[in-house]
Amino acid sequence: MPDAKVRAKKIKLFLFDVDGVLTDGKLFFFPDHHSFIEAKGYHAHDGAGISLTRLAGIKTGLITRRSSDNVAMRGQELKLDYVRQGIQDKLGAFREILKQESMSAAEACFVGDDIIDLPVMWNCGLAIAVANARDEVKRDAHYVTLHAGGDGALRDAIEFILKAQGKWKQVIESYIAGHGPPSQ
Amino acid sequence: MPDAKVRAKKIKLFLFDVDGVLTDGKLFFFPDHHSFIEAKGYHAHDGAGISLTRLAGIKTGLITRRSSDNVAMRGQELKLDYVRQGIQDKLGAFREILKQESMSAAEACFVGDDIIDLPVMWNCGLAIAVANARDEVKRDAHYVTLHAGGDGALRDAIEFILKAQGKWKQVIESYIAGHGPPSQ
Amino acid sequence: MPDAKVRAKKIKLFLFDVDGVLTDGKLFFFPDHHSFIEAKGYHAHDGAGISLTRLAGIKTGLITRRSSDNVAMRGQELKLDYVRQGIQDKLGAFREILKQESMSAAEACFVGDDIIDLPVMWNCGLAIAVANARDEVKRDAHYVTLHAGGDGALRDAIEFILKAQGKWKQVIESYIAGHGPPSQ
Amino acid sequence: MPDAKVRAKKIKLFLFDVDGVLTDGKLFFFPDHHSFIEAKGYHAHDGAGISLTRLAGIKTGLITRRSSDNVAMRGQELKLDYVRQGIQDKLGAFREILKQESMSAAEACFVGDDIIDLPVMWNCGLAIAVANARDEVKRDAHYVTLHAGGDGALRDAIEFILKAQGKWKQVIESYIAGHGPPSQ
Repeated sequence: MPDAKVRAKKIKLFLFDVDGVLTDGKLFFFPDHHSFIEAKGYHAHDGAGISLTRLAGIKTGLITRRSSDNVAMRGQELKLDYVRQGIQDKLGAFREILKQESMSAAEACFVGDDIIDLPVMWNCGLAIAVANARDEVKRDAHYVTLHAGGDGALRDAIEFILKAQGKWKQVIESYIAGHGPPSQ
Repeated sequence: MPDAKVRAKKIKLFLFDVDGVLTDGKLFFFPDHHSFIEAKGYHAHDGAGISLTRLAGIKTGLITRRSSDNVAMRGQELKLDYVRQGIQDKLGAFREILKQESMSAAEACFVGDDIIDLPVMWNCGLAIAVANARDEVKRDAHYVTLHAGGDGALRDAIEFILKAQGKWKQVIESYIAGHGPPSQ
Repeated sequence: MPDAKVRAKKIKLFLFDVDGVLTDGKLFFFPDHHSFIEAKGYHAHDGAGISLTRLAGIKTGLITRRSSDNVAMRGQELKLDYVRQGIQDKLGAFREILKQESMSAAEACFVGDDIIDLPVMWNCGLAIAVANARDEVKRDAHYVTLHAGGDGALRDAIEFILKAQGKWKQVIESYIAGHGPPSQ
Repeated sequence: MPDAKVRAKKIKLFLFDVDGVLTDGKLFFFPDHHSFIEAKGYHAHDGAGISLTRLAGIKTGLITRRSSDNVAMRGQELKLDYVRQGIQDKLGAFREILKQESMSAAEACFVGDDIIDLPVMWNCGLAIAVANARDEVKRDAHYVTLHAGGDGALRDAIEFILKAQGKWKQVIESYIAGHGPPSQ
């Protein structure tokens, strides 16, 4: 995908969906007094990937329609620059972040898995679908990851971008040497 | 499966089993005072699928033999029209729903995975088995989904029906535009 | 495996291991006051399978080295005749059950996945390994299931036995008709 | 891999990472008062494997960057000789253990899955990558396991070492006979 590589070179902002992308899409509920708490599984490889992204000077964030303490907690642990939960209009949230960063859409990547992600994917510089994305989403993506969401898909996306930017080796060396506060 | 497509065109009621269909069949137990609570994993793609079904004007519901707060909660979140738990006689529950909706069996679809689902599957207009259904169930189904239960099987079933009805594109556009209150 | 079918015809007692057989082998721990509780995932297809076994007049039970409230609860729900937890010497527990039932070893089946199960598997009438069993265990089994533990392996084992005994169709019909109190 | 076998013969110390190696890499969070607890899935086959390692007279331990009560509990249950959590500099922790055991690096094996494991893997006698390791890690490993982390990868690694040392059969016999206190 030569086009995707050209697009990846410009990326300064790495945004993604949560359910099916940062996770495998599975939602677990547990009773908690008169309400329920929501649990889901994150992958350690994605955590290391977010650290690599930060070391490369790229901003990071999630935009998701659901809302839970769980995601807030993972977002904090990953030291994400943007954690936007409860978002029905993802394109609107996306444009707000661009404005706040004074970046153009061409400088932003979005990783998605379902049709609600399409408006952002149609309007960002690099649209990435995870391996487990629904067909409509894969069809409109510039790049599709090898791993599924929750199994390292974000890490694949990050590796693709940093390799296109020629930063991969240097960022790994910096990460291994312990420069910068890591997430996992 | 030309026959399945013809059957799908008539569907106005979309019913399904829970364990192995809305989930991957796995049951987790956690102690809770003197009793146990039950947990299981739902998939975000199915949630979006239920929203699409509602946008298409199709009624939705689950019929399951087990019973837990967990399923009640997911049913509420998905805004299902029918949540029938603790049902030993699924065919009886199915006929009650038909009566309440004044629909014929030919207008109803049922998605199942195990032999307890067979009586309803034999008596509904469109019988769908999930990819992980037991062989007896697949053999008697009009259509078998590509994904397994808990991994988007319901979404596959919904896509099959809405495409057969020629509503797929329009419903997706409506969903993306944010018409109607969505589930996920 | 013609030999396995001949062996299956004699089975009146269906015994199995828990971790890796009734589950996929995964163990989750959660803090609980000053201790920890253990969670693991059971499969609905196995539950229906245990009901079919009971309808066929075959006794059922589990023998496991670990011990948790969780397994006791699932054993109760499945209406197992024997729940033997915390067993280091599985062969000893197996022989005790045979004695209590006045059965010969040739009338008992054991489903296992790891080397600790081998002594019972070497000494029972029908030794079944699950698809995810370690190689040593598969090598010494009379039959290997198609599905992995926690994904319907027990159901496969039960289907194999009941088909060899010529009871499969009748038991399914009886189950669907709602005869006998079911497990799931 | 003849080289890996030669290396395996010398191993007296078996060390490994946790997330993605002792588990499949998935992290679950649950609210707990004003904080969160972390859960992850361990595999029973690895537990039996650690028992076999101990029966073979090999020391065992984990080195991980994250830190949770959960891992402390599993480490205790597995009777590991070393449980080093919250370690940013894995190579430093590795060298400390070598010093404490008065062993050379050639006598130590490390099983890893991600780039943070590379410094130890480059400096130990036998570097093993799990099946689900990132490509950089597999490329620099002497041996790659058949199973993925959390699905028996450690057991594969242990089997490879004990077979190379000619101890496999004897250790299994000893384990089955119930010699030594087992883990699972």
